[in-house]
Amino acid sequence: MSSPSIVNLACPVPLGSGDTVLLGHGSGGKLSADLMRDLFLPALGNPVLTRLNDQAVVPVGESRIAISTDSFVVKPLFFRGGDIGSLSVHGTVNDLAVGGAAPLYLSAAFLIEEGFSMESLRRIVASMRRAADASGVIVVTGDTKVVERGKGDGLFINTTGIGLISSDIELSADRAQPGDVILLSGSIGEHGIAILAEREGLEFESTIESDSAPLNGLCAAMLRASTAMRCMRDLTRGGLASALNEIAAQSHVGIELLESAIPVREEVRGACEMLGLDPLYVANEGKLIAIAAPDAAEDLLLAMRSHPQGAQAAVIGRVTASLPGLVTMKTPLGTARIVDMLAGDQLPRIC
Amino acid sequence: MSSPSIVNLACPVPLGSGDTVLLGHGSGGKLSADLMRDLFLPALGNPVLTRLNDQAVVPVGESRIAISTDSFVVKPLFFRGGDIGSLSVHGTVNDLAVGGAAPLYLSAAFLIEEGFSMESLRRIVASMRRAADASGVIVVTGDTKVVERGKGDGLFINTTGIGLISSDIELSADRAQPGDVILLSGSIGEHGIAILAEREGLEFESTIESDSAPLNGLCAAMLRASTAMRCMRDLTRGGLASALNEIAAQSHVGIELLESAIPVREEVRGACEMLGLDPLYVANEGKLIAIAAPDAAEDLLLAMRSHPQGAQAAVIGRVTASLPGLVTMKTPLGTARIVDMLAGDQLPRIC
Repeated sequence: MSSPSIVNLACPVPLGSGDTVLLGHGSGGKLSADLMRDLFLPALGNPVLTRLNDQAVVPVGESRIAISTDSFVVKPLFFRGGDIGSLSVHGTVNDLAVGGAAPLYLSAAFLIEEGFSMESLRRIVASMRRAADASGVIVVTGDTKVVERGKGDGLFINTTGIGLISSDIELSADRAQPGDVILLSGSIGEHGIAILAEREGLEFESTIESDSAPLNGLCAAMLRASTAMRCMRDLTRGGLASALNEIAAQSHVGIELLESAIPVREEVRGACEMLGLDPLYVANEGKLIAIAAPDAAEDLLLAMRSHPQGAQAAVIGRVTASLPGLVTMKTPLGTARIVDMLAGDQLPRIC
Repeated sequence: MSSPSIVNLACPVPLGSGDTVLLGHGSGGKLSADLMRDLFLPALGNPVLTRLNDQAVVPVGESRIAISTDSFVVKPLFFRGGDIGSLSVHGTVNDLAVGGAAPLYLSAAFLIEEGFSMESLRRIVASMRRAADASGVIVVTGDTKVVERGKGDGLFINTTGIGLISSDIELSADRAQPGDVILLSGSIGEHGIAILAEREGLEFESTIESDSAPLNGLCAAMLRASTAMRCMRDLTRGGLASALNEIAAQSHVGIELLESAIPVREEVRGACEMLGLDPLYVANEGKLIAIAAPDAAEDLLLAMRSHPQGAQAAVIGRVTASLPGLVTMKTPLGTARIVDMLAGDQLPRIC
């Protein structure tokens, strides 16, 4: 059998002259990676930061802790399935959880534009509290800054989270090995489409909700089920494609996906077609992938499917020794295509 | 001797209708305290957050850690004596240090306006690195978000810091006791005046530099010198007056200052007079106060004066049982005035 032809469908985006920051530098895609490699790492680099995981794992006293930070600039602030408050809790809780940590504490920093509605702030903070309670974390410290009208955009929130990570857990994006399987916890693209629908005033046949949810319960169940996981990643900015590209690059392996195995809800697929988007690149806020040794797949799938956040879990591909650094996908037609990193910014301010 | 007459010189500021967020809600003064008490605490409150220290102290495994978060929105980004990069390191390092923690790790989240100069970003990140090295901390994780032109203001940075705090240290703003002395590490008002000078294009006779500096070395020296400290506070937004008001309120004590004992550089005093500002309310970024049992004062002063950041340290007042919750100041004329919390926003975007 001849190897399938490989077609690169990723759209190149003009990258600008490089002397100013572009929206795409915040996309979580190729420009974000360039900025990290060319500017942040040379200046701030150290062995922890350089690992480029979504969370840092560092020693404190006799313990190992995970630290993760995220600023949330989602627009609009309220959307079907959540708001910036719940999102800012889930996002950071999930970054800790996929590192194998039990999230414990959050800080919350509010950057408010003068004139912002006190009632909206109240609703958002109440939503943070509900999300924190549901995730089992507490907000232990905070900060509020106010900028003049026209110097912000309503409300931005930064959350930074601290989790405890047990000494025997070693998950990292550089640990994928040829032969490993790739597990996905559920259908993709819902958060990004929900935001876009809200923003553009689109009405889809069936209303699509953000999947924003805490994943720490699911991650804990997976860690109990198997000690053979290499890494987990939650699929936020840049979607499934970006997360897998990062793992392929950091582990120096190829990744081969089976398109038919990737769950995408019919409404999301329809909306993506209408909008010219590829669901592989659309953001999620309650989905993760795990890379694991093949003989662990069954136990992990069972554990995932027993958890509400993983009911639709599936094996969607495998790690290969060939084509290191590349993610490819077999289509139902039998061809294969390269699933590149997002070059620019498909959907700005999605989280 | 009759008790001196008390005159309240604080300027009342119109507080608005309460249905929108005002610039003053980010001032670190009275409106900030209102927002905390009326909105954030009822929604997010828990025993750690409710202590209202500048850092949370929480257990992780067998250790106690301190966590502090701050968003930096200073305008302009570069100023005499520092920039937003060094400030964002010093600010968080100092919040940890005054809690008695040894700062270890920082997260750094960049919120960038589209079109921001890559060269400025590079300079700022290099400055963060130098400040981190000088403070003995490392940046272990980060985040970058980009917002559209006109939806931000160049660059905002959030840093969140983690420090280790030894089990025998118990510093808190609710521990001040009548008879305690109040120590100040050096002259006040330099950061605020440096920023304002830069912003307004003012030229003072002698150029005033921000005092932005890490205080963890000084704090460690003070903790070694005495076990009788009740609390420390760095003097940022809202200045010396706001920090002391918070302590007076939380400890239910009075605080009596001696105006002549408070060091203010001549250029700062002159600039304040010209601008109609009270140096007690002007921000600092490298100064702290400590409250300590009276018999510890001598050892502490000696330790402070032996450290570059505390060379001008002085005893500036004492804690009283009378007038609980109030800060008063004896003027050189022998009268006393109430040093209230800042009602509105004296200098927005000072940090």
